[in-house]
This record gives sequence, structure tokens and C-alpha cells, in this order.
Amino acid sequence: MSKIDLNCDMGESFGNYKLGDDAEMLNYVTSANIACGFHAGDPVVMAQTVALAVAKGVTLGAHPSYPDLQGFGRRKMELSSDEIEALVLYQIGALAAFAHACGTELTHVKAHGMLYNTAAIEPPVAKALAHAIARYSQGLTMVCLATSPLMIEAGQKAGLRVAREAFADRAYNADGTLVNRKQPGSLFTEPRQALEQVLRLVKQGEIRAVDGSTLKLAADTVCIHGDGPAALPIARTLRQQLTQEGITLSPY
Amino acid sequence: MSKIDLNCDMGESFGNYKLGDDAEMLNYVTSANIACGFHAGDPVVMAQTVALAVAKGVTLGAHPSYPDLQGFGRRKMELSSDEIEALVLYQIGALAAFAHACGTELTHVKAHGMLYNTAAIEPPVAKALAHAIARYSQGLTMVCLATSPLMIEAGQKAGLRVAREAFADRAYNADGTLVNRKQPGSLFTEPRQALEQVLRLVKQGEIRAVDGSTLKLAADTVCIHGDGPAALPIARTLRQQLTQEGITLSPY
Amino acid sequence: MSKIDLNCDMGESFGNYKLGDDAEMLNYVTSANIACGFHAGDPVVMAQTVALAVAKGVTLGAHPSYPDLQGFGRRKMELSSDEIEALVLYQIGALAAFAHACGTELTHVKAHGMLYNTAAIEPPVAKALAHAIARYSQGLTMVCLATSPLMIEAGQKAGLRVAREAFADRAYNADGTLVNRKQPGSLFTEPRQALEQVLRLVKQGEIRAVDGSTLKLAADTVCIHGDGPAALPIARTLRQQLTQEGITLSPY
Amino acid sequence: MSKIDLNCDMGESFGNYKLGDDAEMLNYVTSANIACGFHAGDPVVMAQTVALAVAKGVTLGAHPSYPDLQGFGRRKMELSSDEIEALVLYQIGALAAFAHACGTELTHVKAHGMLYNTAAIEPPVAKALAHAIARYSQGLTMVCLATSPLMIEAGQKAGLRVAREAFADRAYNADGTLVNRKQPGSLFTEPRQALEQVLRLVKQGEIRAVDGSTLKLAADTVCIHGDGPAALPIARTLRQQLTQEGITLSPY
Repeated sequence: MSKIDLNCDMGESFGNYKLGDDAEMLNYVTSANIACGFHAGDPVVMAQTVALAVAKGVTLGAHPSYPDLQGFGRRKMELSSDEIEALVLYQIGALAAFAHACGTELTHVKAHGMLYNTAAIEPPVAKALAHAIARYSQGLTMVCLATSPLMIEAGQKAGLRVAREAFADRAYNADGTLVNRKQPGSLFTEPRQALEQVLRLVKQGEIRAVDGSTLKLAADTVCIHGDGPAALPIARTLRQQLTQEGITLSPY
Repeated sequence: MSKIDLNCDMGESFGNYKLGDDAEMLNYVTSANIACGFHAGDPVVMAQTVALAVAKGVTLGAHPSYPDLQGFGRRKMELSSDEIEALVLYQIGALAAFAHACGTELTHVKAHGMLYNTAAIEPPVAKALAHAIARYSQGLTMVCLATSPLMIEAGQKAGLRVAREAFADRAYNADGTLVNRKQPGSLFTEPRQALEQVLRLVKQGEIRAVDGSTLKLAADTVCIHGDGPAALPIARTLRQQLTQEGITLSPY
Repeated sequence: MSKIDLNCDMGESFGNYKLGDDAEMLNYVTSANIACGFHAGDPVVMAQTVALAVAKGVTLGAHPSYPDLQGFGRRKMELSSDEIEALVLYQIGALAAFAHACGTELTHVKAHGMLYNTAAIEPPVAKALAHAIARYSQGLTMVCLATSPLMIEAGQKAGLRVAREAFADRAYNADGTLVNRKQPGSLFTEPRQALEQVLRLVKQGEIRAVDGSTLKLAADTVCIHGDGPAALPIARTLRQQLTQEGITLSPY
Repeated sequence: MSKIDLNCDMGESFGNYKLGDDAEMLNYVTSANIACGFHAGDPVVMAQTVALAVAKGVTLGAHPSYPDLQGFGRRKMELSSDEIEALVLYQIGALAAFAHACGTELTHVKAHGMLYNTAAIEPPVAKALAHAIARYSQGLTMVCLATSPLMIEAGQKAGLRVAREAFADRAYNADGTLVNRKQPGSLFTEPRQALEQVLRLVKQGEIRAVDGSTLKLAADTVCIHGDGPAALPIARTLRQQLTQEGITLSPY
């Protein structure tokens, strides 16, 4: 009996600026990572996104970032461990307020963009992130890059349950890293491609890399990028076809 | 057996900028209203201030504001009720995260500056503020201007316990409003003045206004402005002398 | 020989967020009001927008705003005259830097959103705005709401040339104010409607109000809202048809 | 006939937060580097600081920074060359507006904090900085770390006049780098120490490093840190004693 979680980053509109179609995407995914105002999102967007997710029964996670609205949290910043721990705590709490207000709680935390990427390769950042989550609540799951043992270990050492994340719509290199966004074919635009990748992942615990080689990969959750060009068709296809294949879609 | 709470706004440093002497002030007050990053404070300052207050056994409250770092939250902004509710929830949650991380909880919420002043005179703002607090938790106390029945009523209608606030270091007009900060004598600089005002308030339920008239006023908490020129001497004197007079200092 | 300027607000993208199709719009308008980072725009967007406008020979104006990215500069803020003057100067200078870098200069300043609306009805705000522009350079034109004598007068008293602005794509009330955006029909979606309004304005110096009455109006420039649903078709139609009718499109 | 410029970073207050005593410092220095709102300063502070400097006849320079108010521009950020060029242009222009408004012009640009430090060691950052300055105006002087040939060369290649900067109040290592701020003795607190260092620099073109060795150094300007504990006494001493020694204090 196979089982996987489908997650998507959400609530990334800001003020007058709209990004993604969260209402539609929430029909397909099982967990939502919601921006907390540092790379995207604002209090009103957060309130609306949380209310939508709660209404659709999708579990809620915080999606904290470096403080970089202009760079959408994708620019490297050198922050101290204290700074990282404090800004992660701040963002978790801010989002949790909207969950409380809807009578529910956060289930997980997934760092955004460059904070996630850095936590996957720099132990002090992984540790500060894990420490912040664990200080907020030992009951939260930390979403970690499935190919980053150091990030997974940081979460486990902090006493957290971790969810290993793979990507439905991104091509992988043979070494388990993602193909650079700037290279053609790095982002899948055909739902069929994403479906194949996820089926192989769930059924065989494998990814086929761009060079044709096979990569062993154990994942608990699969990410669909909400701002990708084919985000909704991919999400719809995964929801439908995975269910049809007898795979249970459920949050961690 | 008389009893009063002494409160002070805190955590109003930001990055490289220092404001007030929170560590010292925490020796005297019984509750702390901690800035949440919108008019002052940043995640690191919040972490430090909460840790200090917890170490000294002072109860923690959120001190949410309009989003206006440059104006220190003292400039009027016309926001919708949805916007106010969302930004208050956001800030309560952000501060609560640091309380959780220290194993404790917030006890109260006191709006800052122009948000507080506006909530004291505009029913929709009072209602949005009260609603946000109540949605976060019915267990939170809402700090209200003792001379604003509409603010007090908004809190009570939302099902909240309210704490009526008076000011130790500010002169009052005969109608119960505060003397404008720009007028001489509006801000007490002599600890003795503050002490007299608080003693009369606690023992007789009265304030002597600037014109010599007497104003009936029931208060649960007394505010000392941490950035006033005589903040620490006033706080020290109140702590010492009120205790000596047999008045119990304790949070709501 | 009739003559009119067509203007459009531009450069209102921010970081990862895209708004409007400036490159296309610049084919039709004769002057561009470029956001300066306070309600929209960031340094990179400003650099790109200025370069585009210069390449297309469209004259450049600053589009300064209240400091309110989240509210897109549409929320009322109560600022002192000193604050308004300083933030307008700041934004004019910031945009002028990109003009200098392209070997050209700004020709005009048009306030954005709530700053524009407030300057149209509050003399101190109109005066602070005009004063800031005049202090930067007496050679700049101040764009004023054609139906606001007080704003026009503030510009003239500051020694500035003013350009009286009407709107191509907005319905007018009989008293010369714009029909509220929330009312149906307030924003034209048919290029034909906009064309009729501009032709009547240029040829007869009149606007037909929503109640059918006629309003005398002298205008030097006509605004097309770049974020309207029919912005590009309206701009294309105006450019083509006005030219065909023998009306010269040229900046002030 | 020896000659040197004394410079100081200024205008680093923000809103309610005060930093340094600019009015007093302007009595001693010959050029002022004024914060542009990205690491410190706001439009009102900029207006006031420029007016003060103009009144005292001190030449004006822009002091642009990474966009990092919370980190006071001291945290590393990885920005593209386009981003750096755009944000430097933006800040130069913003400050220049206040100079224009006072009937004068900027004479120089000195990058702040981590942007300065990074430009001293990373060629693409030095080049983007120099390019932005040169695009704004070939008449501006670029202030460069005297011990960074790469930064000096970047300025010269962009066609700019450069001013080589040394520090009056900081201890040097034998390799020409500054002793880390965290080490004792890194920041001079005795005016006499600063005076000795500047006299040796001006008269002999040398610095005595912390290990006692001698370092050849040619400098055009000497920086006093306005936020140092002994900033004003040092500035006063330098002004008085250098003049007495027959050294001309004058801007580049």
C-alpha cells in the first residue's frame, strides 16, 4: 500500500500582486506551505490562504524565508545562526496565528528558496532552522530535501519528524541535485513527465536522472511548484492518476 | 487590599538602533508589552526581550502596531477592518512564537501608538483589534484606555477580559484625555509626580487633572513609558513606594 | 490644430511580481509616469523601464507615492508636510538617476494613487508636493487633476508649469469626480468608449458624465491605466484614431 | 604642502532612532558621506543632514548600501551586477535630490559597510559600483579603500577620479587590512592615537601596524567613524592639530 503527500508552496501573492491560483491548487494537493511575509505573502493574503486551505481540508505548514521580498527569498544572505533561528520562529508564529484563528494548528515547516537550499548544504543553517522549529513545537514535521542527509539529520537531531521531499516537476542530475532552472528541460511542462517521475519514485523508490541513469530516492512528499507554467494540469493529473494507481495521497 | 499592574512597552530597539533599557526596567514592572516588528523590534530583539522578561518573571504581551517602522507606528493610516485584524493576528503570533520557545504563553495584547489611539475613538478599529485578539485566544487580556468606554466595550463584546490602563507619567486633561505631548508638563519627569498620581489612582480611584479638577478613573494597570527621560527612576520609585504602601504589584 | 499627451503609469512590477505590459504600452503613449519604489517598482525595474522608454522616445516622469508597497500606495496616510516634501524629493531623485544614466532628464512628476488624490483635495499636501517638485527643478511639469483647481494653483504658485490630466478609461460624475472604481461601468472596457471620451474632450473641451450631463473640462494630458483589463486595446485605438482625426499626440 | 580630506559617515538616524551627532561632527570634517535610506537614513533625515552639511560648507557624498536596514548594511548579500548597479544609481539619485534642492551637487560616492568591503575584494562588485557612479556622472569621485588596488582600478577604468581612503580610528594589520572590530584595540578611543596615525600617514605616507611593522600607504582622505565612542574628541583633535601642523584640510 503506497502512500505519498503532495505539497505546494502557496500564499505568495502580495498586496496588489497576484501569484498562482491557490484556490484551484488546493483541490489537488494534500499539504500547503504558506508564505509568511518575508519573501511573499502579507497578513491579509495569509489570512485568506489559511482560510481556503482549512476549508478544503489541506494541512498547513509555514514557509519561512530570508527577509527579501524584492529577491523573492532567492538571494543568498549571510545571517548568523541567531538571526536565522529568530526569523524562522517569527514566521512560524505569524502563520500559526491564522491557523489558531481558524481553530487548527500547523503540521509542518518547509523553508523557502535560498534558505531551503542553504540549509541543504550548510550544517549551521540546517541546525538553526531545525532548532527554531523544535523550539516552537516538537510536534511539527520538518520538510527536508530528500537528497540532503545533513538536513535530514539536523531535523532528527532536533527531535523532529522529518518529511523527505522530492520534486514532481523538476529534472534531476545523476548526483541527486536538481538541474539548473536556466537549462532547457529543467522544469517539466508535460503532466505526463511529472506523473512518470512520481510513479517511479513511489513504486520503485527511484528517479531517472537527465543522463538516463537511475537514482535511488526515498521520499515522503512530492512538491509541485505553484508558479510553474503547467502547475495546475500537473497537479490535476497527479491527483487523478496516482489515486487510480492505488496510491494513497495523504499528509505526513 | 489594593492591587495594580505596572506595565511598560519594550523591545523597541531595531537592528543597530537601541532604545530604552529593558533589562533594568524589567526589574520594576509586572507586565511587558513587546514590540512585534511593525513599528519597532525585529526577530532577534524579540527573542532577546522575551528571554529577558521570562528570566525576570514578567508576564508577556504583544504590542502590535500599524506597519510603519519609519513613523514608529505613530502616524495615522486608514486600513480596512480586514487589514487591521490580519496584521494584529500576524503580530500576536510572531511574538507568541518566542514565548512558546521559552515554554510560556502570552497573557495580554496592548496595541501601540496610533493603532491604540485610533481604537480608543473609532469603533470599527476597536472591534477589529478585539476580534483579532479573541480569534487568537479567548484567554488573552485586551489592554484598553481606561477613559475609552468604546474600546473597553469592544473587548468585552469579543468575550475578552479587559485591563483598563492609566498612565503614571502623563498629565491628564479634565475630560480624561492626555495632555498633548508637545505641551510643557505633559510628561512627568519627577518620580514624585508619578508616584502621587498612581497612589491617588489606586487608593481613591481618581486622577487630578492639569486644571486641578478631579477625575474618577478605575484602572487595572499603569503604564510607564520606557523611552521617557525619567523612565527608570519613576519605575524604581513606583515599585518601591507602592510596595511600601501595601499595594500589591501583580499582572492581571 | 488640436494636441494632447497620452500618459500611462509604468514600471509597477516589483521583484518577482509582474504588472502590466510596459514594452507594448510604450508604443502608444507619449509620456510615462514611472514608479519609484515606494508603491511599486524596484531599482532593477526602474532601470529597465527607463531604458525602454528612452529607446521608444517616450518622455519620462517620476510617479512618487506614499511609502506603502503592500497597499500599492492607495491607503491614506497622515504625513506632515516635511515628510511629504522629503519623500517626493527622494523619489524624484531616485528616478532621475536612471534618466541621467541614459543621458536624459525627467520632464514631469505625477503623484500616485492616494498621494495624488489627497493632493487634489488637501491644500497642504498639494503645496508640499508642488514645493518638492519645484525645489528639485523649476523645469519639471506637475501633472494635476484637471478638475482640481487647488492642485493646479499649488503647482502654479510654486512656479511650475502644470499639465491638467483627464482619464481616458474612467467614467466621470456630473461634479467632475471619477465614478467609484467599485461601481459597474466605472472603468471602460471598450476602446470605443475611451475614444469617444477623449475625442469629445480634445475637440469640444467636454466630458459626458454618467448621468448624461455635460462637463466642461480643459486637459493637456490623458491617462490610460496600464493595469486596466483593456489597457492595450484602448491605447492602440487612441493612438491610431486620434492621429487619424488629425490630433497631434505629443508630450507637454 | 600636505593636504588631506577628513570624512565621516552621517545621516544614519532613522525615524525615531537617533545615531551620532552630525551637527557637531560637521564642524570638524571636510566631507560627509550621507546614508541613502537602504542601511540607515530616511527622506526626512536625508533632507536635514544635507541642509546641515550645506550650511557648514561640508561637501556632500552619497553613502549607498545593500538594502538591509535591519542589518545596517553589514550583512553579505549575493546580488547580481545589474542589481548592484541599479541600487547604487537609485541611492545616488535619491541623495542628489536633496543636494539639488539646496542648490548644490554631490561630489563623491562612498559605498557603505558590506558593499564597500565586498567591492574591495570582488572585482564584479567593484565594477558594478564604479559603473553606476560613472553612469550617474563622470564628475563624481569614487572613494576607495587605499589598500585595495582592485577597487581603485575599477574606479579609474570607469573614468572616475578616485580618493584613496584610510582610517583615523582603526588599527591596521601588517598586510594592510583592518584589525577585526571584535579584537581589543581595533578601534582607537584615544584622540592621541588617531592623531599619531594620521600625522604619520600624511607626513610619511605610512601606517604603523599592530605588530609594530610599517606599511606604506598613500591616502587622499581619512575616515572618522561617527558612531565610535570617541568620535567627536577624535574629530576635534584632528581638526585642530592637523591645522596647527600646517596640513591643509580640504575635500578632494
